[in-house]
Amino acid sequence: MTSFSCPAPLPARETVLLGHGSGGALTAELMRDIFLPAFTSPVLARLEDQATLEISGLRLAFTTDTFVVKPVFFPGGDIGSLAVYGTINDLAVGGAQPLFLSVAFLLEEGFPLADLRRITQSMADAADGAGVSIVTGDTKVVEKGSGDGIYINTTGIGTVPAGLHLSAANARQGDAVILSGPIGDHGIAILTQREGLQLESPVESDSAALHTLTDAILGVTTEVRVMRDPTRGGVASALNEIAAQSHVGIVIEEQAIVVHDAVRGACELFGLDPLYVANEGKLVAIVPGAAAFGVVKAMRAHPLAREAAVIGQVTGGEPGLVTMRTAFGTTRIVDLLPGDQLPRIC
Amino acid sequence: MTSFSCPAPLPARETVLLGHGSGGALTAELMRDIFLPAFTSPVLARLEDQATLEISGLRLAFTTDTFVVKPVFFPGGDIGSLAVYGTINDLAVGGAQPLFLSVAFLLEEGFPLADLRRITQSMADAADGAGVSIVTGDTKVVEKGSGDGIYINTTGIGTVPAGLHLSAANARQGDAVILSGPIGDHGIAILTQREGLQLESPVESDSAALHTLTDAILGVTTEVRVMRDPTRGGVASALNEIAAQSHVGIVIEEQAIVVHDAVRGACELFGLDPLYVANEGKLVAIVPGAAAFGVVKAMRAHPLAREAAVIGQVTGGEPGLVTMRTAFGTTRIVDLLPGDQLPRIC
Repeated sequence: MTSFSCPAPLPARETVLLGHGSGGALTAELMRDIFLPAFTSPVLARLEDQATLEISGLRLAFTTDTFVVKPVFFPGGDIGSLAVYGTINDLAVGGAQPLFLSVAFLLEEGFPLADLRRITQSMADAADGAGVSIVTGDTKVVEKGSGDGIYINTTGIGTVPAGLHLSAANARQGDAVILSGPIGDHGIAILTQREGLQLESPVESDSAALHTLTDAILGVTTEVRVMRDPTRGGVASALNEIAAQSHVGIVIEEQAIVVHDAVRGACELFGLDPLYVANEGKLVAIVPGAAAFGVVKAMRAHPLAREAAVIGQVTGGEPGLVTMRTAFGTTRIVDLLPGDQLPRIC
Repeated sequence: MTSFSCPAPLPARETVLLGHGSGGALTAELMRDIFLPAFTSPVLARLEDQATLEISGLRLAFTTDTFVVKPVFFPGGDIGSLAVYGTINDLAVGGAQPLFLSVAFLLEEGFPLADLRRITQSMADAADGAGVSIVTGDTKVVEKGSGDGIYINTTGIGTVPAGLHLSAANARQGDAVILSGPIGDHGIAILTQREGLQLESPVESDSAALHTLTDAILGVTTEVRVMRDPTRGGVASALNEIAAQSHVGIVIEEQAIVVHDAVRGACELFGLDPLYVANEGKLVAIVPGAAAFGVVKAMRAHPLAREAAVIGQVTGGEPGLVTMRTAFGTTRIVDLLPGDQLPRIC
């Protein structure tokens, strides 16, 4: 008897690559080839940054993220505040009100307790400041050489208002693409710290909780199609995901995208494209064209989005294709990278 | 100006030890000295295996656990099914109906994709069998040497019936201590696999989902005081936590505790005490003395608790103290170990 139901096993030589954790093409491949065929949940298959669940009529958002950033302390934050803000943001971009977080520490034997204390306090301060509660946790310790100091998983629960349905599959021709501010600060802050590079004007991570900004946007219109925080893989990867899931084209304008001079300089030095560099306090919103002006105005009134701007639009072009009109008037394809330019940035 | 509000910083030489992840005395110290002072949530301070939250009148249980077991495949299970059952059980012992899980993979570069596929399928099968849905996830990859193949965090949500309030702080003098079956199978299955030891009768992990068993118990009486799954640190650590939090004494009878011969033999060989060896499909329940007979009867009707028995009682003895009457008629103190006898077993 022959069974056709099992996928052909991968050759034994195939192993996990750093790029499988990049949020880029290899991560998408892992989802498609391994996770989605096994985990058959229709909620998971939506591939949003958070699951939206319904329990006894209550709509909940639920999301998980592990933070492996190296170094753990960096200009503008640390792995603790990042772990709190990152999960809050994954809830917020689904339109949810973040409420509760779990925290799971994975510690390597020999990690300084003073650093653990500092990181823990940073998490507590970040959660307090954002009005969310850390309510449950776990600690595991692995032998020296089986970890890298500290990794932190945070998982979050929030409530989603009735009637709100944001999705990366919702973008439509004519929609405006809005970006909340300058890009690449987080990735470059990490990289310069890691490499011991002194920049003329130091770059700080933009790490921040975005739920009051998403509130402000939803206060203008609940017709928002998609919100995403462009972390791993940067703005380019976020837009590629949206274009692919919505089966639309997206065109962005290079001149509309703000990059701090120091970030641009560091990117040139390291041969990086800021469009692919991680952010931790930025937001991409896709809204109906008619609502764009009002949304940008509301965003600019928020301290985390003073430089919000329309950076492009959703088109009837080739589905899944993101293109950019450059400062020189040419057009180039903004593709999904196979891996990440910078591993271990979040 | 002198401030008295900051705890004295730990000396820089103090570092994380393997025992800090054991579930024993060092883990308790970490909670008391670092986590609880920073995370001021009253829910966390209850130190249950799960947080019970109330959102718009709905009672939810919420729990997180990271699995670092080595080796990842072992007799009776693997890290994938263990990660699903472990989090289901932490919900179930709070009296919750487990509903949804998140999964976060932390992969080391070079981990075989075929193993990842097998583990993923095992998680999917375990979740399907238990009737819970894996609805959201995350994947991170770290460089070779910064991890150990695969670590998995699962975080779970369940619903808690109105009026049910289980807590490790609820045990009272006169209550019965019930154990669901033979102890030590999981830890010894891991250890013999790790050491390449051949036993005459091989020991399999007891890894299983306990929520139908907890349902059966709660079907007899909702006056159950505490339920715990004695994992890290074994039955001894679970009883110590309950005795400490309830400010009661607990006396158990060695002769009432079943240990498989092969487990006993391996424990003697390695110098381990089965009371401290991890289980992954066992349950300790503390119930009013008058309900004990009915609860044991209902448990024995369940396939996972055929050998359930009353193993001891809650006394008015020294608060926090667990003692055991041995087979020889003597009494010994069953203390909290500083660390774990066996690291990386869950």
